[in-house]
Amino acid sequence: GQPLLLIAGPCVLQSIDLAMEIADVLVQINSRDDVNVVFKASFDKANRTSLSAKRGPGIDKGLRMLEEVGSRSGLPTTTDVHLPDQALAVGQACDLLQVPAFLARQTDLLVACAATGRPMNVKKGQFMSPEDMQYVVEKVRGSGSGGVMLCERGTFFGYGRLVNDMQSLPIMRSLGVPVVFDATHSVQRPGGLGGATGGNREMVEPLARAAVAIGTDALFFETHPKPETSPSDGANMIPLDRFEATIGRLLTLRRTITDIDSAV
Amino acid sequence: GQPLLLIAGPCVLQSIDLAMEIADVLVQINSRDDVNVVFKASFDKANRTSLSAKRGPGIDKGLRMLEEVGSRSGLPTTTDVHLPDQALAVGQACDLLQVPAFLARQTDLLVACAATGRPMNVKKGQFMSPEDMQYVVEKVRGSGSGGVMLCERGTFFGYGRLVNDMQSLPIMRSLGVPVVFDATHSVQRPGGLGGATGGNREMVEPLARAAVAIGTDALFFETHPKPETSPSDGANMIPLDRFEATIGRLLTLRRTITDIDSAV
Amino acid sequence: GQPLLLIAGPCVLQSIDLAMEIADVLVQINSRDDVNVVFKASFDKANRTSLSAKRGPGIDKGLRMLEEVGSRSGLPTTTDVHLPDQALAVGQACDLLQVPAFLARQTDLLVACAATGRPMNVKKGQFMSPEDMQYVVEKVRGSGSGGVMLCERGTFFGYGRLVNDMQSLPIMRSLGVPVVFDATHSVQRPGGLGGATGGNREMVEPLARAAVAIGTDALFFETHPKPETSPSDGANMIPLDRFEATIGRLLTLRRTITDIDSAV
Amino acid sequence: GQPLLLIAGPCVLQSIDLAMEIADVLVQINSRDDVNVVFKASFDKANRTSLSAKRGPGIDKGLRMLEEVGSRSGLPTTTDVHLPDQALAVGQACDLLQVPAFLARQTDLLVACAATGRPMNVKKGQFMSPEDMQYVVEKVRGSGSGGVMLCERGTFFGYGRLVNDMQSLPIMRSLGVPVVFDATHSVQRPGGLGGATGGNREMVEPLARAAVAIGTDALFFETHPKPETSPSDGANMIPLDRFEATIGRLLTLRRTITDIDSAV
Repeated sequence: GQPLLLIAGPCVLQSIDLAMEIADVLVQINSRDDVNVVFKASFDKANRTSLSAKRGPGIDKGLRMLEEVGSRSGLPTTTDVHLPDQALAVGQACDLLQVPAFLARQTDLLVACAATGRPMNVKKGQFMSPEDMQYVVEKVRGSGSGGVMLCERGTFFGYGRLVNDMQSLPIMRSLGVPVVFDATHSVQRPGGLGGATGGNREMVEPLARAAVAIGTDALFFETHPKPETSPSDGANMIPLDRFEATIGRLLTLRRTITDIDSAV
Repeated sequence: GQPLLLIAGPCVLQSIDLAMEIADVLVQINSRDDVNVVFKASFDKANRTSLSAKRGPGIDKGLRMLEEVGSRSGLPTTTDVHLPDQALAVGQACDLLQVPAFLARQTDLLVACAATGRPMNVKKGQFMSPEDMQYVVEKVRGSGSGGVMLCERGTFFGYGRLVNDMQSLPIMRSLGVPVVFDATHSVQRPGGLGGATGGNREMVEPLARAAVAIGTDALFFETHPKPETSPSDGANMIPLDRFEATIGRLLTLRRTITDIDSAV
Repeated sequence: GQPLLLIAGPCVLQSIDLAMEIADVLVQINSRDDVNVVFKASFDKANRTSLSAKRGPGIDKGLRMLEEVGSRSGLPTTTDVHLPDQALAVGQACDLLQVPAFLARQTDLLVACAATGRPMNVKKGQFMSPEDMQYVVEKVRGSGSGGVMLCERGTFFGYGRLVNDMQSLPIMRSLGVPVVFDATHSVQRPGGLGGATGGNREMVEPLARAAVAIGTDALFFETHPKPETSPSDGANMIPLDRFEATIGRLLTLRRTITDIDSAV
Repeated sequence: GQPLLLIAGPCVLQSIDLAMEIADVLVQINSRDDVNVVFKASFDKANRTSLSAKRGPGIDKGLRMLEEVGSRSGLPTTTDVHLPDQALAVGQACDLLQVPAFLARQTDLLVACAATGRPMNVKKGQFMSPEDMQYVVEKVRGSGSGGVMLCERGTFFGYGRLVNDMQSLPIMRSLGVPVVFDATHSVQRPGGLGGATGGNREMVEPLARAAVAIGTDALFFETHPKPETSPSDGANMIPLDRFEATIGRLLTLRRTITDIDSAV
């Protein structure tokens, strides 16, 4: 079977020391045979609930930090792009470009990211059906992309809650692209904290198991040595000291799935 | 780990010959160590989309058929109860009583089923949160039940489509009861066939895998030697000649989950 | 234009004195030219959230109370039917039979109600599209009914909240039947009170206005002299001393709609 | 009562002649006492379903066209802003800035629009609760805006369908801002046309009536002399030759609402 692609890191860049503390664990995981790790962190949280919420170091400083983490760890890196004119710089600094779910229909952003020639990970809009992601794939493929993955990160279910339609993974895969399951953001509770987004960490691994079982090419997690101090998404992160064991369990499960499918 | 409870059978009772053809496969599966099988078939489809849709043999003939299948196969049996005054007769003929999802809030039905002293499988209403199933558990426990299981069978997502919120399995399990995943009905497309309910069989095993991975005590399937001839739910059924292999794959997966969890 | 049909009363029968206190106000409203009032109260709340919740006087006592209210007030009466074998008695005691939303797909219940020859008000299931109510109409029409109305009372929107899709009124009307807007139950918050169903009375009249403006043949309200003492739905009821003024405003609005449409 | 604010125009700028043909009708409507009209057209459709879909004349040419329409008609103008660096130019050319629903959480865009000092119309994200729009108001108010309106344009309801939660109008108004009802986009059927967004024009006026009845400060419509030739949203537009009569009916309805409320 193909190795699992693991996209992981802190939610937002805070300091090089913190990033490297996390990268060290990811390097350790990356030494396993059946997983390839990409380091992910945001330079800007562009759609925070509140104006006063912390956003990150900004694009210039942030990309320098990502380059340093990539260089010191040897891991490829990824970050999210919010505006078309950010794509070129991100494409030069990072190996994989991520398009946020809220922006999954913004044509110029998709085209600008594709034009870098880098592979892209586009998160399914929380307001889109998995079938309609085919138009995203077409936009990107028609624009020179170095490949595209589609990511399930939850669909809005009423107000204030997300649901993972696990069928979205095989449906999006049937579009001819690899699929990613974003376990961290799937458990968000938008507006659940009054001016911030809540979540439920305890559901992250169970949902990731379900995603592996139904079939996913990649998993996305946020991890942090002290999640409660993260400027965002702390409620959904896996504590760093539990991260490798979590991934180990998911890889064990994935091997069984591979064995089952190869026997058919 | 606990053996998997497998609830399976044709959707509706058609003939003893057909029921026994399916039961023979189930007996074969039941001979495995890690699974216990209950034969399920309905005597009446009480909420068909259309008045003209076929409904089944009715309670008297249906319960006699279930008794004969149970007696000849040695398998315990279950069927769904639609009205409070059916509960006693069903409790005498069957080993497990099933409450349909649409009726999950009908107090008298729950109480009448509980009063038989038989264990019950209550399907989560397609319009209920998993958390709110606690009130169902309380109604049943306060009424003498011989135990209750709760079943995830999909939640309405917009019109005409169901979504499985896989979090419902651990949430309902946290209420202190075993949980069931109904793979067959989760893929229904209500109204999708114009006067009948459509579905998508290809998603049944993938969703069942996800349910096993996130953790379920029981699985529910409908199977038929010729699904296209079934009076209902044919689009969602697993063909009988593929059924044992499907269950075998799910049991393999479940062993891995058990191993992973016992190592924690 | 046709007079508005107003279906109103306390949620559940408590005492004759209370029922008559409400009926007196309804008689007053009924004296207006452009409205016909039907007194509604339940003899049993059959799907309360909790087992311990109060349910009402039961069918025998309840139907006697409804007959007395009808006789003393001169108003036609209606109540909800929960089981097929209740239909005949309800049809003898009341002028209009109501089928609860959770039970909108139970074929036997629909058929039994239709067989009384009384007109019926079937509430759209909270889990059904307005288009799919055509099958309900067909079930009823094929069974001898004295006419059927369809009622919008909210559709489940995520967990714990209902939304009124106002398009359901013209869509269901296009099935060739009169439509009802149930303003009281549309503002329920299922599970919102921990073991009971919450609500928001302030939204009742605004939603009723929207329904009148988009076009409805009937309105359904619950009213009570002391809503906070009602055994159920108190949070959603209009206080009795404000009820006639509320209806007056809605009738004024409806006359404008009639004028606008007759000028087209 | 306050005059109704009417925001209307073609969806996207095509030619000056077409824009002026529509503006002439709007000028006629604007001569009424109880309505103030703003001309709206997009210079770019930035989130079309498909890459090949037509997008408009672009910002430079588009803003010149809007200035010409404004100058010749005497009507204030508005258009949607997609990127922060477009806000300044749009603020110089137009009287009102519109933020698209998909972008309602993009902090930089909101702040850039607010910084122009122009009033803004922010559409509620199809994935947001009306209550959570308070954070949008706070972002804008904290950034120098010349006033903000919030617009209901539908919330995703399952896949491929929107629902108007009419409660969102009074809920958003309770945040202390005027509210807008976008009747045209509320009837979109995303993905409904296979690579394009479908819709249902027949529901536009009924929904607008409901919005007026529940209470709205402004209405938003798209109109076109030949909707079937519009590059986008043609299925949802009101034909221009029916537009004034439609608005007339809505103004009649609104006067009744004003009268009703002033009598309370």
